[in-house]
Amino acid sequence: MARMEQAIKDMVDMFLEYANGDGKLNKDELKNMIQKEIQNPELKAKLCAVDFDKAMERMDKNRDGEIDFKEFLKCMSCMAKCYYKKKTGKDNE
Amino acid sequence: MARMEQAIKDMVDMFLEYANGDGKLNKDELKNMIQKEIQNPELKAKLCAVDFDKAMERMDKNRDGEIDFKEFLKCMSCMAKCYYKKKTGKDNE
Repeated sequence: MARMEQAIKDMVDMFLEYANGDGKLNKDELKNMIQKEIQNPELKAKLCAVDFDKAMERMDKNRDGEIDFKEFLKCMSCMAKCYYKKKTGKDNE
Repeated sequence: MARMEQAIKDMVDMFLEYANGDGKLNKDELKNMIQKEIQNPELKAKLCAVDFDKAMERMDKNRDGEIDFKEFLKCMSCMAKCYYKKKTGKDNE
């Protein structure tokens, strides 16, 4: 049981893997990550039905057309808040 | 391989487990989490040597003496940024 350490390590490793060495995720790399790193069919279907242009726009805070690690972490936090809300019924805002 | 999903799930589950039902981590609960959910001896030693009063102060953005889920996510992001920097040598700011 080292879930704290594992979650941190996985977020970094996963980002670096899919960013293919340039430290940024473009739209195809982000799609590829979601396709491969989410197994729950309901969640995957939901995320894959998303309009990726719009999603990128929302995540890409500095508007450079790619997702850097900081933007990726914001996206992970956002998904964790959604899951927290679903599980507890609480908003935590 | 479903690291994205797993990391999100683990962050929520872990927080709820250690928060003991009230949706907040106090200092002892946070210490307990770090003790149990980090295995790397170097990292654990570093985190356990931390002055917990100061660490709580820094994490506890709304100054209520406890860490809510939003504050916990900020702390996870902060640790992920440190690990990213250590691994890549880049700051991502």
